[in-house]
Amino acid sequence: MDFSIPAELQALQARTRAFIADELIPLERDARCTPHGPNEDLRRELINKARAAGLLSSHVSAEFGGLGLNHFAKAIVFEEAGYSPLGPVALNIAAPDEGNMHLLEQVASPAQKERWLRPLAAGKIRSCFCMTEPAPGAGADPGMLMTSAVKDGEDYLISGEKWFITGAEGASFAIIMAKLENGDATMFLADMDSPGITIERAMDSLDTCFPGGHGVVSFDNLRVPAEHILGELGQGFRYAQVRLSPARLTHCMRWLGAARRAHDVATDYARKRQAFGKPIGAHEGVGFMLADNEMDLHATRLSVWHCAWVLDQGALGKHESSVAKVLSSEAIWRVVDRSVQILGGQGVTHETVVARIFADVRAFRIYDGPSEVHRWSIARHILRGNQHNAH
Amino acid sequence: MDFSIPAELQALQARTRAFIADELIPLERDARCTPHGPNEDLRRELINKARAAGLLSSHVSAEFGGLGLNHFAKAIVFEEAGYSPLGPVALNIAAPDEGNMHLLEQVASPAQKERWLRPLAAGKIRSCFCMTEPAPGAGADPGMLMTSAVKDGEDYLISGEKWFITGAEGASFAIIMAKLENGDATMFLADMDSPGITIERAMDSLDTCFPGGHGVVSFDNLRVPAEHILGELGQGFRYAQVRLSPARLTHCMRWLGAARRAHDVATDYARKRQAFGKPIGAHEGVGFMLADNEMDLHATRLSVWHCAWVLDQGALGKHESSVAKVLSSEAIWRVVDRSVQILGGQGVTHETVVARIFADVRAFRIYDGPSEVHRWSIARHILRGNQHNAH
Amino acid sequence: MDFSIPAELQALQARTRAFIADELIPLERDARCTPHGPNEDLRRELINKARAAGLLSSHVSAEFGGLGLNHFAKAIVFEEAGYSPLGPVALNIAAPDEGNMHLLEQVASPAQKERWLRPLAAGKIRSCFCMTEPAPGAGADPGMLMTSAVKDGEDYLISGEKWFITGAEGASFAIIMAKLENGDATMFLADMDSPGITIERAMDSLDTCFPGGHGVVSFDNLRVPAEHILGELGQGFRYAQVRLSPARLTHCMRWLGAARRAHDVATDYARKRQAFGKPIGAHEGVGFMLADNEMDLHATRLSVWHCAWVLDQGALGKHESSVAKVLSSEAIWRVVDRSVQILGGQGVTHETVVARIFADVRAFRIYDGPSEVHRWSIARHILRGNQHNAH
Amino acid sequence: MDFSIPAELQALQARTRAFIADELIPLERDARCTPHGPNEDLRRELINKARAAGLLSSHVSAEFGGLGLNHFAKAIVFEEAGYSPLGPVALNIAAPDEGNMHLLEQVASPAQKERWLRPLAAGKIRSCFCMTEPAPGAGADPGMLMTSAVKDGEDYLISGEKWFITGAEGASFAIIMAKLENGDATMFLADMDSPGITIERAMDSLDTCFPGGHGVVSFDNLRVPAEHILGELGQGFRYAQVRLSPARLTHCMRWLGAARRAHDVATDYARKRQAFGKPIGAHEGVGFMLADNEMDLHATRLSVWHCAWVLDQGALGKHESSVAKVLSSEAIWRVVDRSVQILGGQGVTHETVVARIFADVRAFRIYDGPSEVHRWSIARHILRGNQHNAH
Repeated sequence: MDFSIPAELQALQARTRAFIADELIPLERDARCTPHGPNEDLRRELINKARAAGLLSSHVSAEFGGLGLNHFAKAIVFEEAGYSPLGPVALNIAAPDEGNMHLLEQVASPAQKERWLRPLAAGKIRSCFCMTEPAPGAGADPGMLMTSAVKDGEDYLISGEKWFITGAEGASFAIIMAKLENGDATMFLADMDSPGITIERAMDSLDTCFPGGHGVVSFDNLRVPAEHILGELGQGFRYAQVRLSPARLTHCMRWLGAARRAHDVATDYARKRQAFGKPIGAHEGVGFMLADNEMDLHATRLSVWHCAWVLDQGALGKHESSVAKVLSSEAIWRVVDRSVQILGGQGVTHETVVARIFADVRAFRIYDGPSEVHRWSIARHILRGNQHNAH
Repeated sequence: MDFSIPAELQALQARTRAFIADELIPLERDARCTPHGPNEDLRRELINKARAAGLLSSHVSAEFGGLGLNHFAKAIVFEEAGYSPLGPVALNIAAPDEGNMHLLEQVASPAQKERWLRPLAAGKIRSCFCMTEPAPGAGADPGMLMTSAVKDGEDYLISGEKWFITGAEGASFAIIMAKLENGDATMFLADMDSPGITIERAMDSLDTCFPGGHGVVSFDNLRVPAEHILGELGQGFRYAQVRLSPARLTHCMRWLGAARRAHDVATDYARKRQAFGKPIGAHEGVGFMLADNEMDLHATRLSVWHCAWVLDQGALGKHESSVAKVLSSEAIWRVVDRSVQILGGQGVTHETVVARIFADVRAFRIYDGPSEVHRWSIARHILRGNQHNAH
Repeated sequence: MDFSIPAELQALQARTRAFIADELIPLERDARCTPHGPNEDLRRELINKARAAGLLSSHVSAEFGGLGLNHFAKAIVFEEAGYSPLGPVALNIAAPDEGNMHLLEQVASPAQKERWLRPLAAGKIRSCFCMTEPAPGAGADPGMLMTSAVKDGEDYLISGEKWFITGAEGASFAIIMAKLENGDATMFLADMDSPGITIERAMDSLDTCFPGGHGVVSFDNLRVPAEHILGELGQGFRYAQVRLSPARLTHCMRWLGAARRAHDVATDYARKRQAFGKPIGAHEGVGFMLADNEMDLHATRLSVWHCAWVLDQGALGKHESSVAKVLSSEAIWRVVDRSVQILGGQGVTHETVVARIFADVRAFRIYDGPSEVHRWSIARHILRGNQHNAH
Repeated sequence: MDFSIPAELQALQARTRAFIADELIPLERDARCTPHGPNEDLRRELINKARAAGLLSSHVSAEFGGLGLNHFAKAIVFEEAGYSPLGPVALNIAAPDEGNMHLLEQVASPAQKERWLRPLAAGKIRSCFCMTEPAPGAGADPGMLMTSAVKDGEDYLISGEKWFITGAEGASFAIIMAKLENGDATMFLADMDSPGITIERAMDSLDTCFPGGHGVVSFDNLRVPAEHILGELGQGFRYAQVRLSPARLTHCMRWLGAARRAHDVATDYARKRQAFGKPIGAHEGVGFMLADNEMDLHATRLSVWHCAWVLDQGALGKHESSVAKVLSSEAIWRVVDRSVQILGGQGVTHETVVARIFADVRAFRIYDGPSEVHRWSIARHILRGNQHNAH
């Protein structure tokens, strides 16, 4: 048992922290930050900065230009990246691209990797992941998948509607989850400019951190050749799991960084702002909120590290990532909400970055499985007789 | 002891409810709703609708065009108004105008009433209340007031900076809290186009419900004649109290309506959206959230009614309004947050009105005294030996 | 709408409060207080005191020696009674006798009333209510009732096992819920010394407030003549409802008094005990707990009053009593737990009465329907389309 | 970074677990378990069992008969021990003896070790730690120490009153904190049968796990020779710190085991008990409680391991042990409270061990520093500018 961070990883952590502080925080109020994330011009500038700093796509293997970080190393680096809303975009580790790269590297054919993974990992293009559907389709319950893929000669014709498709606007390609005629789910790759793909509209959301925002995308007899099937036919749900457990955990890592930022801003304010004769932090009412933040950040970090370690041992980590996700997303939410409260009026305005983090992070208790679905999954795991204290 | 609503008040409640449903909810997606509230064109249209419906400025006395509602009647009507983000603006009962009308009616001279209260109550103009200051001035601790009023002949020269001034942009006049040379606080009335008043900038905020948003306002030797002193010299803090207790409670009333709206939208969704083989409301995880909403709405309504009754008995209600404010603002927040969670992805987008309510209501745990300041005030009340069960 | 207490009820409240303070609190450390409640000797002494004070069985009609209080009046008086763990026993308004008297008065035949209600209301005897069964019988789910009543001539033969039978030891008679051969539930009356009734054992419990404690009772062909059927055949569940809604609410009333006592003891301590240079109540960490207590007591009292008013209007109040029960039992629990915390080491010892209240009140979140069952019942009520804001 | 447990430690864990299951759980209902803990006869039997199993006093160095476990190894073994209320007593690792052994081993002179540590580590005698005083003495604020030690020749005369002295009844010796004439705090060793020591009375408490219960002890000119000063004169508070950080953490370890037991009992019940047509665990309302238990146990274990690792690196771990203490004691409390709730009526009776754990564990949020004192200490640590993310 060991909680230490190896020296070279500490160096990478320090380098990332300095990059965020020196290069990104000054750009947070750049006018190219839109309600739908940094625009493409800003995104490219950020990507170039990260490439110059040797920090681009660090989770991808060296073959595709990354550093091949394991899950624990990602926990360290991604937390630093999340410290600025611009960090994940700059380092090319934001959702959904980060998870898509992970999935492609695991599952895609060599040709698919060259065509889609290489430019994605280089930050030259963006991608999207088309899974969630409007009612009565697949939402929290993926089993309700309705988008269909019908065999037509050697090709498949995909039809259906998706929404909450993060980054759809501006994406070069999509990974599409669809249901075969036999009911099996399969993933397909398609360029976004293919005939049959339409971005119906952008959805307005509380968060403003994802390039391209969230879109409604429809498929109308989109023709996909067999060689663009991602991995094997009928393995869609299995691949979703391959993608989801680590992708879920990287969300925890990034938002942990964001929560730490909110806490730091609030702490700084609590030291300086006076009320009733002393700094507000010297009032227990505020001090206790800082203490609770500290404990929530600590528990989040430990559970993220633990789950990363489990994944690094080669396990699927389905249970552990559910635990880490619920624990983290709720603890992080409390930290950010308390930070808003400590900042008073400034907390609910864009005088500081905290209001932005607050609006960005609310969705994290919902996406990649709402707390309620994970709690139920954890409960079934317990009831099946699994020891909660097994390692 | 009686929890019934008199028949005529029930009729007014029903009329208000129908007005909100028929006239306002269809306008909620009107393009004239800006990040800084309904624009002036929309506001005037809303005011005209309410006037036509006989619902304008119902809290003001008949002399100034209102219905002269007592606090309990306001609890009923304002809750209905809050059901739409447009309701308070339409009925001319939004902050800060509603509280300003209340204060002017209590304290202003006949001439001041004619000049400022009459057009304000008619919805022809808007107003602002200039109290909060940037550090190191008056925030949660009003005693730190720095804006100064220096006697100059028969006039006063006011200098200082204020922020979080809701509705400053577009307001016709301001009530300004300033400190005399002897340290006493005094309120002054001034037209916003007076020389010496500058709106430095608008503040970007999470909420989008207040016309004019929140501004930074500076005073540079603003000259105010003695007849524009509001009430008596040196009574600023006492008048703030006259204004704050009821104004605090009307916030509770309006936001209770907003929370009820969020709950209704979530309930409707919980009935219809299926997951894992049944409507999501039939899952205890969601059903329990609805039950908790019900209890929070119930406790909020009862505490608001209780405090309204205390005020209607002629008491100042300082303690009761602190209790109602903390209890309500925190319960309402939980209701809205749960409603977001029940709605899943839609909860964090503007597919429904709930995300807007969510962003609007966060500040309510902060303004008119953050929870921490009220908790401390409640604690001192208890420690001074007051019976919590006295009526 | 009116929150005032009529003058004569205020007088009764004051009289009850004085009785508790003067007559009962001095007896709280009497050695006759056993782990299974006040023993019979002490109980009779308490009953005599209350009779002398004119406060005995106040909820029963004058015909049977009570004051015929309505539900609101009970809310006032029972809260006062609950202020001492001895109060409900002394005033003969403790569970299960209080609910049994209520039920008998509503449903029993004149002969049954003379035989069982009259001496019960006079405090001469005690009773028990035999409903809950060990697995796989009726617990939180009353539909799982297994105790059987088989017709035998004009009589019924009852067999089965019950547990958590409060007051069984020492009770003179029982109301027994059993299932007829056709599956319908029926209530029967039987003297506890009848052949066929055995008290198998006492159960050790956290609470020590109920005379006789909680017992396991078995029925082995207990013969009950038809005239001892309580009310009509097959109406067992309906009568359970008649008993449960008000009985549930009187629990809220009594425990509210107990929570107020805990809060008062903690407040007194917070005023006097010094730490880090000032009274501990002057530390926000403690002061905020007192403030939260105040809000929880306030919300509890309001919801109890509201539900009492609903019952006084003649409604069944099933939903309202569920809301009041969950809200009260959880708020009361928080108050008592915080009071323990404020008292520090003394809170977890019997140096004050608070540890006793703490151990007594935990079960209240479980009996008369655990929070989870009520939350689900509230949820279904909402989902069926009931307006939460109907009065 | 590594969360694995070395093989030999896993073996010790398994051995301890088996010992608890096979030897102690069958004895939990032994009549020799009194309200003031296992009596001396049972205690000796338990000690003998543990000695035979090679598990006695494992935290003490081999020189004094233990296994010399480091903090992490203690985290593993003590959690197992806590699984039964009898575990810590049997393994001779219960408070206050465990902390006293730790302190003596660090600070005592060779002669003191032979006289007091050796028989204590062998389980032949018990000890107590006399620090807490009734008002106006030292409670949560140790600075208020009033017990005095006055120099008299080569000896010291100690006078004062202590309470909440765990294990005083039956202890062979005491460590006594007293204040010198110059105000410095010093620790003294004294046999309990010395003239001048009186156990005034036992305190009745909610917990029943500590042999000897909690006593009130008075010192009246207790004469202590200079060689019985523990360590150096005037170092009392420093030694208290030496004792407290690890002692605080071992509490977390043991109570984690107790909470795991409660959770296991509740899980077992949730699998078997039916209600409304399925096992209660299959109701989300119960399943979610199990999931929350899992997360609380997980966060507790991780924070305990983290703090143990910090201590094993040689750091004082004052901040980390405060974090671990608040986080653990509150999470453990929630786990046990939820387990009671899941068990329904049985949860509040002694039908299972859970009610006993519930009554035992409440005090843990208070002793070794109540949550409020630790939160304030954590807050000051943050405000002083310490990075919460430093390792």
